[in-house]
Amino acid sequence: MIQCAFYLAPDGKFLDQLNMEQIKNFLATGKGLLWVDMENVTNEDAELLSNVFCFHSLAVEDCISKNIHPPKIDDFEDYLFIIVHGINYHIQSEVEETTELALFLGKNYVVTSHDVPMRSVSSMLDRIQRDGRLMRRGADFLAHDLIDALVDNIMPTIEEMDEKNDQLEAEALHEPKRETLMSIMELKRSILALTRVILPQREIVNRLSRGEYALISERAQIYYRNIYDHLVRIEMLTLGLRDMTESVLSTYLSSVSNRMNEVMKVLTLIATIFIPLTFVAGIYGMNFANMPELEWKYGYFIILIVMAVIGVSLAVYFRRRRWL
Amino acid sequence: MIQCAFYLAPDGKFLDQLNMEQIKNFLATGKGLLWVDMENVTNEDAELLSNVFCFHSLAVEDCISKNIHPPKIDDFEDYLFIIVHGINYHIQSEVEETTELALFLGKNYVVTSHDVPMRSVSSMLDRIQRDGRLMRRGADFLAHDLIDALVDNIMPTIEEMDEKNDQLEAEALHEPKRETLMSIMELKRSILALTRVILPQREIVNRLSRGEYALISERAQIYYRNIYDHLVRIEMLTLGLRDMTESVLSTYLSSVSNRMNEVMKVLTLIATIFIPLTFVAGIYGMNFANMPELEWKYGYFIILIVMAVIGVSLAVYFRRRRWL
Amino acid sequence: MIQCAFYLAPDGKFLDQLNMEQIKNFLATGKGLLWVDMENVTNEDAELLSNVFCFHSLAVEDCISKNIHPPKIDDFEDYLFIIVHGINYHIQSEVEETTELALFLGKNYVVTSHDVPMRSVSSMLDRIQRDGRLMRRGADFLAHDLIDALVDNIMPTIEEMDEKNDQLEAEALHEPKRETLMSIMELKRSILALTRVILPQREIVNRLSRGEYALISERAQIYYRNIYDHLVRIEMLTLGLRDMTESVLSTYLSSVSNRMNEVMKVLTLIATIFIPLTFVAGIYGMNFANMPELEWKYGYFIILIVMAVIGVSLAVYFRRRRWL
Amino acid sequence: MIQCAFYLAPDGKFLDQLNMEQIKNFLATGKGLLWVDMENVTNEDAELLSNVFCFHSLAVEDCISKNIHPPKIDDFEDYLFIIVHGINYHIQSEVEETTELALFLGKNYVVTSHDVPMRSVSSMLDRIQRDGRLMRRGADFLAHDLIDALVDNIMPTIEEMDEKNDQLEAEALHEPKRETLMSIMELKRSILALTRVILPQREIVNRLSRGEYALISERAQIYYRNIYDHLVRIEMLTLGLRDMTESVLSTYLSSVSNRMNEVMKVLTLIATIFIPLTFVAGIYGMNFANMPELEWKYGYFIILIVMAVIGVSLAVYFRRRRWL
Amino acid sequence: MIQCAFYLAPDGKFLDQLNMEQIKNFLATGKGLLWVDMENVTNEDAELLSNVFCFHSLAVEDCISKNIHPPKIDDFEDYLFIIVHGINYHIQSEVEETTELALFLGKNYVVTSHDVPMRSVSSMLDRIQRDGRLMRRGADFLAHDLIDALVDNIMPTIEEMDEKNDQLEAEALHEPKRETLMSIMELKRSILALTRVILPQREIVNRLSRGEYALISERAQIYYRNIYDHLVRIEMLTLGLRDMTESVLSTYLSSVSNRMNEVMKVLTLIATIFIPLTFVAGIYGMNFANMPELEWKYGYFIILIVMAVIGVSLAVYFRRRRWL
Repeated sequence: MIQCAFYLAPDGKFLDQLNMEQIKNFLATGKGLLWVDMENVTNEDAELLSNVFCFHSLAVEDCISKNIHPPKIDDFEDYLFIIVHGINYHIQSEVEETTELALFLGKNYVVTSHDVPMRSVSSMLDRIQRDGRLMRRGADFLAHDLIDALVDNIMPTIEEMDEKNDQLEAEALHEPKRETLMSIMELKRSILALTRVILPQREIVNRLSRGEYALISERAQIYYRNIYDHLVRIEMLTLGLRDMTESVLSTYLSSVSNRMNEVMKVLTLIATIFIPLTFVAGIYGMNFANMPELEWKYGYFIILIVMAVIGVSLAVYFRRRRWL
Repeated sequence: MIQCAFYLAPDGKFLDQLNMEQIKNFLATGKGLLWVDMENVTNEDAELLSNVFCFHSLAVEDCISKNIHPPKIDDFEDYLFIIVHGINYHIQSEVEETTELALFLGKNYVVTSHDVPMRSVSSMLDRIQRDGRLMRRGADFLAHDLIDALVDNIMPTIEEMDEKNDQLEAEALHEPKRETLMSIMELKRSILALTRVILPQREIVNRLSRGEYALISERAQIYYRNIYDHLVRIEMLTLGLRDMTESVLSTYLSSVSNRMNEVMKVLTLIATIFIPLTFVAGIYGMNFANMPELEWKYGYFIILIVMAVIGVSLAVYFRRRRWL
Repeated sequence: MIQCAFYLAPDGKFLDQLNMEQIKNFLATGKGLLWVDMENVTNEDAELLSNVFCFHSLAVEDCISKNIHPPKIDDFEDYLFIIVHGINYHIQSEVEETTELALFLGKNYVVTSHDVPMRSVSSMLDRIQRDGRLMRRGADFLAHDLIDALVDNIMPTIEEMDEKNDQLEAEALHEPKRETLMSIMELKRSILALTRVILPQREIVNRLSRGEYALISERAQIYYRNIYDHLVRIEMLTLGLRDMTESVLSTYLSSVSNRMNEVMKVLTLIATIFIPLTFVAGIYGMNFANMPELEWKYGYFIILIVMAVIGVSLAVYFRRRRWL
Repeated sequence: MIQCAFYLAPDGKFLDQLNMEQIKNFLATGKGLLWVDMENVTNEDAELLSNVFCFHSLAVEDCISKNIHPPKIDDFEDYLFIIVHGINYHIQSEVEETTELALFLGKNYVVTSHDVPMRSVSSMLDRIQRDGRLMRRGADFLAHDLIDALVDNIMPTIEEMDEKNDQLEAEALHEPKRETLMSIMELKRSILALTRVILPQREIVNRLSRGEYALISERAQIYYRNIYDHLVRIEMLTLGLRDMTESVLSTYLSSVSNRMNEVMKVLTLIATIFIPLTFVAGIYGMNFANMPELEWKYGYFIILIVMAVIGVSLAVYFRRRRWL
Repeated sequence: MIQCAFYLAPDGKFLDQLNMEQIKNFLATGKGLLWVDMENVTNEDAELLSNVFCFHSLAVEDCISKNIHPPKIDDFEDYLFIIVHGINYHIQSEVEETTELALFLGKNYVVTSHDVPMRSVSSMLDRIQRDGRLMRRGADFLAHDLIDALVDNIMPTIEEMDEKNDQLEAEALHEPKRETLMSIMELKRSILALTRVILPQREIVNRLSRGEYALISERAQIYYRNIYDHLVRIEMLTLGLRDMTESVLSTYLSSVSNRMNEVMKVLTLIATIFIPLTFVAGIYGMNFANMPELEWKYGYFIILIVMAVIGVSLAVYFRRRRWL
């Protein structure tokens, strides 16, 4: 489904909501700059991509298919086919998922395609609708602005993960539950999944910034280099986050075993104090005919005191050895 | 054993089930496209490969031998000898095993050889038998179609592993048994084994798509690139799966130790409550001549109440400290 | 905010605290050497960078933004834009943080920018203020001196970490507490964070020393090589430190489980000695009509001796088997 | 000690057991193919290598020395000095050890040297002694045949390790003992040691097959490539084996802790059932003057029944919670 | 401090203990071969290096400074500045430390500098003092001999570590103590530290042997290659040692938990056998008026037998289940 189609003529005239005919005309002239954004490409939309823009059938297929496609660039000489990933704000799943933006970059057009609404694309659409002159720097800069917005939108998610990590650390420290472990494992997996998307993406932006493709002007390359720097920063933060999650996991495990140990220790100590005392009581419960202590007038009280002394001494001894 | 031998003449005439003579003739003319598929190559079949096709003896030996051969390409100038791996649906073993497809790619012929029936090859054979014109794009495209089908058939296995992983996670969480651990270890090993086959395969397809070999036309290279993208996706999924298996393993281990801790804790608490009570009973079981409490009218009942108070206080205390 | 602006004329005349006009004039002549240091660049300061020095807007933006920027070099032909990291002495946080120094290196000027005061920069400013002739070796040497000071200032932090590690080892060995574990994890994270900054920094200095950039004279390259050697040394020390932290972590874990085991063992042994004794006492507490031992004159004393013998034998046995 | 010296003249005449004089003569003519095999090279043998063959003193020293030499190729222009490793069948040590074959490959001679008898070399010697024409393909093919036999002999050891692994798994599962752990660790170490020898060897064979050395004809290169493929297969199998050993180690550890937990659980449960019962018995062992139950006619029997009920209820409860 | 200064004239005349004047003269003529060895370079010695030999100030600084310098080569065209590491026999510290040898290699001189006495250097000095003709092969061979001696001296340390490892394994197996763990961790750290020095050193020797530097003659390169091979061997041994230390660590951990388990199991079993017996005794300690067994003539003896039967049955049962 075509969401938007913008055209900026070389004389600065701006058109939005172009129809199919107009798109064909502008492509034929080869002047000005055209941006077509498509959401949830159907087979009919694919006609436009295949017949009007003449894109390669494999690239068009990638736009239609709902599968995950890792980040990549395919160079078809007349145009580049780029897939980059952003964060999906619309799915509330356990593991952070990424959304793909497929982007055709030609000399004087950009065609974008995505399966779900993307925040970065729609904010760009809004801004250009208000002021068409934002497109005047050419197709390479338009593509840059889109990828840049996409990458910038990854940062809040990382911050969110960072907060979640802090919260899990507190939980692991003060009341470690089974759910805490599950959340830590999930967070760890999200971070690993993010890393696996960021790394190839960084490499792609690196290649765009190195002058490998004629469609990216030298002026634009510096700006792509800037996106590359952002991705390096995101990578560093992600790696730092991964270390912190490892550390939270250790905290959780040590916390659980600590609590268990504490319980066992105190209980065992109580048992240990009472076992000798019970033994003493057992002695004087024996029925021997001749047990002189039993006949003493204060025998019972003496034994009570003896028991108290034994109990307290053991407790003091245990405390001294820091066992209690 | 030759399973099938197809021939598509330049004029579109299609022949199936060729005999040895016909194969020799068509090879001599060097026109049209020939596909010979062999299953379980015997020494007699090898004659055909060595004498008619004139393949190198080492490559022919690889076809005959039942050993595992890692994925590879050998360039013999006139033809490429390619070994790729698919999933073996016919062996129901613990660890997922792969099957090899050996493929000779010449200018106007493709010869395939495998030890067990392969789903991807047989579906291809069926389709071409119905419509010989599927072969009209040439040998490089025919080889592409075979490898593509092989790679596509890996996906269901990954999904199966994913499901198995989910099921093992539930099992690890709710009733961890020895068998659960064994299954997790097996799944992990399957995933590692798969990774080890996918990685070199990806590299091979990459080389096929880079224009390194003259036998692959430029048009076909883009299609090989597409297989490469699939393999990258499979790799990403496999890595994600590996992380999840690690996480299931942690869940299992924590689950087992959790259950053990729970049992020990409750039992120790029960023992700890009764040990002081037994001590009290022991005291009044002593046989001292002078024990005033024993003579009190309600001494017994008072002591019973004292014991109840001690027991309940301990239980309340333990519950407060969240030990029970 | 411009902190300092120094100018050394070709004839050796030295000016400090230049105003904007003077800076413009000296840049116009293109002679002598200019060093401008800025702290906490505001939008107004950015005017100077953009309009007077004509730096690229992306580089200027990096100076203004308070985000973390990983170490990098951007080559803008007329000048290099370098970001290097030092240790931040002014933040007393858990995890060691680094501060950035952004550095523009032109043919006859150096412009430095940082967000917080930096010890290495201010000591350099002081020294030049006292003797302007320190700038006479040119812009590449001035940049070298700054980066060298920055890198040298990393060493004390590593030594501090080393000391902290030793202290934590002692703590882990003699009184392992929860806080000890937290500190070990923190130290480990600090070391990993430091490693992640040192590594790309080393690569950058390597490129500066390899003659990749025309702005670095051959004579200066050897000096940059020296900084590179320092960074290699820092890396080696950091790796050694990481190993030691791992070892402290093992010590902690083994120390905790050791103490627990020791407590449990001693207590279990005490219980085990008294349980058979209590059983013996229980036997003679039975009320059978016919229990000959009860009638013996010294029955009670014999049994006391028997109990002592049992207790001592068990204790001796346990000690022999090294359980006590 | 010279073990064998074979010579195949260009006219097909074959000589074995050459003496020193003959070797000198054939080398002087530079025609035909000579193979000299030496075991346990002494200083006198070294004379032959240094003075007759004129090999470099360092290479000769490597032949004499009993130290381990990692696989390598040294190119001395007129000849290659190759060290490859095979499995040593003659040492029955804990960790699988490898034996070295040092091989000088010249234009028309091959000189092999080893410290212990090698199965691959002796079978080759036997075969050539029976039919000298096996040497007719030239020096590069002779070297290939030797290295190929060496590499083929690694497979049985891997299969043996595989069997040992299966046996250890069964042992770990059903009766884990200290010795099991020791054997697992040993097996793991053997596998790692093997990997460390295979990897550089693979690289060496790769270089031999790439046409880097003029002494290896193009025809022979394909055969070296075949050895390379074998080594890749061995590597894959070794990696799979390593995973399996890891898995056996996990099985062992889980098995040991499982058995311990089982014992502790059952015993603790028994104790826990009897502790409350003993408490009840303790109550009625108290000597209070006024304990009405004691006077009841069937008091004793009622209490016995109460105890039985308590005991059985606890047992049922524990079984229900799956603790027993 | 200059330790020794040797000079071998082209005509074979040999001088030792040269004074400063003589050194200057020989350098001026540029003939013969000069070796100056310095220990613990002071600022005055540095004069000689800077003014007479005209070495670069940074290299001289590295000689003076007592810091650790990782292995490196700096190429100053007229001379190479090489830092290599050997084992320090003079420090008896926990973690094996390395000592540096700084080496200036010129066309006709070698200058060595080290902070502590080095066994390899002094043995070389002794040998040359006895026979100056050892220097006749030129500066590159002299440098080779020094580095070779240095590398050869690493082997005994590895053997020592190997022995220590064996001893620790025995200790871990038979009487695991806290100190054993500390020693294992230390050994592991020593091995890692050694690896980190060997690896860059290997790379440096590799570069010396590859003909990268004009000062190393082609003849000498083969000899440097030999040192490289030694370093590869040392690396392999170190890696094997690392695996063995890991295995000793596992042995220690399993040994400790094994002993603990053994103790706990036996003790728990003893307790478990006596608890039911004590319960039986408790029953007959109850004071019910009507307890028929108490009146039986042989009641007491019957119960004693019953108890013995229960105790023995439990012990037999536990032994059968292999718990005892």
